[in-house]
Amino acid sequence: AQELRERGELSGSAAARVALSEGKIEQMAQSVEQVGALPDPVGQVQMARQLDQGLNLYRVSCPIGVILVIFESRPDVVTQISALALKSGNAVILKGGKEAQHTNRLLASLIHEVLEASPHVPTEAVSLIESRDEVSQMVRMSDELDLIIPRGSNQLVQYIQENAQVPVMGHADGICHVYLDRDADATKAFEIVVDSKTDYPAVCNAMETLLVHEQFPDSALVSLLQELQARGVELRCCPLTRQRLASSELQLQAATEEDWATEYTDLILSIKTVASGDAAVAHIHQYGSAHTDAIVTENAETAKWFMETVDSAGVFWNASTRFADGFRYGFGAEVGVSTARTHARGPVGLEGLVIYKYRLYGQGHTVGPYSQGTLHFQFENLAPELPSRNS
Amino acid sequence: AQELRERGELSGSAAARVALSEGKIEQMAQSVEQVGALPDPVGQVQMARQLDQGLNLYRVSCPIGVILVIFESRPDVVTQISALALKSGNAVILKGGKEAQHTNRLLASLIHEVLEASPHVPTEAVSLIESRDEVSQMVRMSDELDLIIPRGSNQLVQYIQENAQVPVMGHADGICHVYLDRDADATKAFEIVVDSKTDYPAVCNAMETLLVHEQFPDSALVSLLQELQARGVELRCCPLTRQRLASSELQLQAATEEDWATEYTDLILSIKTVASGDAAVAHIHQYGSAHTDAIVTENAETAKWFMETVDSAGVFWNASTRFADGFRYGFGAEVGVSTARTHARGPVGLEGLVIYKYRLYGQGHTVGPYSQGTLHFQFENLAPELPSRNS
Repeated sequence: AQELRERGELSGSAAARVALSEGKIEQMAQSVEQVGALPDPVGQVQMARQLDQGLNLYRVSCPIGVILVIFESRPDVVTQISALALKSGNAVILKGGKEAQHTNRLLASLIHEVLEASPHVPTEAVSLIESRDEVSQMVRMSDELDLIIPRGSNQLVQYIQENAQVPVMGHADGICHVYLDRDADATKAFEIVVDSKTDYPAVCNAMETLLVHEQFPDSALVSLLQELQARGVELRCCPLTRQRLASSELQLQAATEEDWATEYTDLILSIKTVASGDAAVAHIHQYGSAHTDAIVTENAETAKWFMETVDSAGVFWNASTRFADGFRYGFGAEVGVSTARTHARGPVGLEGLVIYKYRLYGQGHTVGPYSQGTLHFQFENLAPELPSRNS
Repeated sequence: AQELRERGELSGSAAARVALSEGKIEQMAQSVEQVGALPDPVGQVQMARQLDQGLNLYRVSCPIGVILVIFESRPDVVTQISALALKSGNAVILKGGKEAQHTNRLLASLIHEVLEASPHVPTEAVSLIESRDEVSQMVRMSDELDLIIPRGSNQLVQYIQENAQVPVMGHADGICHVYLDRDADATKAFEIVVDSKTDYPAVCNAMETLLVHEQFPDSALVSLLQELQARGVELRCCPLTRQRLASSELQLQAATEEDWATEYTDLILSIKTVASGDAAVAHIHQYGSAHTDAIVTENAETAKWFMETVDSAGVFWNASTRFADGFRYGFGAEVGVSTARTHARGPVGLEGLVIYKYRLYGQGHTVGPYSQGTLHFQFENLAPELPSRNS
């Protein structure tokens, strides 16, 4: 990173982001230790059922296989992903960005040193690739890879999703909404909106659009927008919002159609006034990315309705969208956030890295008698533990 | 079907397969009733965790969305899939084959009659499409569809997998193995092999390759192969198998490399003698399709090792591969069998048709204080039920 910075190819802030301080290294170590301390996600019995006398079926978690993770900038991803992959019994191929090439190499070599000393895990369980050609080639081959996890720009993720012949887990956009209901508490609204937008605007779980019920008090709205403006946030509003705030001293830009569909990842916020919860949800479904959406309200009925109706990976009630994160969910770390509707959704930790297989224990059972109707299934749930013998 | 048959475009046996007798109709009705009686798969709390005082996270199952199911021949698929889709809160678009066009239309119209009388489900929740152009178009569009389930020929499934911009759930090949271990019981071996191959050879969970330990008794092997031959099964063997059976009166063909990778879906069986369990598993991993593989053995250690090592959706001990089926697993019915490693694997019933979303309940919680270290998470598991209030 230092070289690139001196050659003027990397900004100071970008260089700071990829640099590892002593504090960051300590955090990385703690995160790895936390993942290590989590229960083993492999071999969990998720379903246990007797099919007939002596014929028992179990659904047991197992690793997915070989996972390719493509990431940009931050090198702490190397240890985080390696820890999650190894803990879940998977092999991982890491492709980082050139900004942190030296750090990535060093971290990978440290992991290899540890693996070489381990009798149970082959060193190749974690490997690093650096060339783009290798990536293009891997994305297309479906025999050697079981899953691709792209973490990075919208363009990168879309490229992978369109070209991969292998399942892809991740998300392209993070267009998160906060909806201030008619029955919202003004203080909670203030805290949640400010945090959702300004705690870390560059990441996917930051708020991009604020939806405000027309009966949410104008004074409370002005007060929270003043705070945002003081923190450098540019405000882009729908006509109705500009109208209701006309007498304030806020600097309000006009929002265009494009704004509603944009992930700014910057200090910009689009704001829309809605006549109802229905209108808020319709907006979220039309423009959102099904990542994380929050409602602020004191009305339990409205909250329940919102959480059942909004079809996003995270639906929050009176909490900041920034909580959508594997560490904050108690997963120890995350390999990414998924907006897919099949398999893992939301922040993906260990559980998203395992799949199951069905184990069936019989006594020589054949299907014929069941097909012919001379035997009948006797379905019955069993205690969730694997048998040591087959009897 | 009758028209096509008269025009000579459909064989008698194929016409019989798509025809619906009174008995088949009764079976279809029973299957629908069974699915109806299963617990609601939507709204299940799969994870409940306190993140901090007053900040609670729940992972709750919800429908996937709009599912396109493409199937060939058997019209009973219409009621089976519709029942599973409606029970799991999904909308389904069905594309059947022209062999059963009239029956499919009639079944869909019966379902529409029922839905029209229902206040809760829109009629469009089940729809039927007939033109191939519509399918090609749908397979490519990713905004309206959430999942595609192709059920049919290897070619159909591969075409969909290669062209779809939407997740695909299914399997192309069903190359299932039975491995007769050194410690196999001869009677169980006989019953399981005969059932796995001949109970219904045309389906994906039928055995295609028999692996036999070199110490499995020749006499027992001859006896079960005689039975298969008497039932019209053609036997294609590796050189070692032909050698050990040279003194028998069996008619043995030579297996080629291609045989090991072929799903016959017919009365043909390839047979290979292996020197060890390791060799059997290596063969399964090289040529198998990770669908369902069984071991016959009385040795619990060997069985445990086989079930842990073989990376297929189903690993069976002393039971026929034909048990790999949603009904026989107690799921009521199945939308198909998946060999994917992410999300649903094996026979896919209701559970494979739902995904989850995370619900987070706060009291105005913001991320800032946790980022700054003034507040700390207090992770704690909760009882698996949703709160009625937010407190």
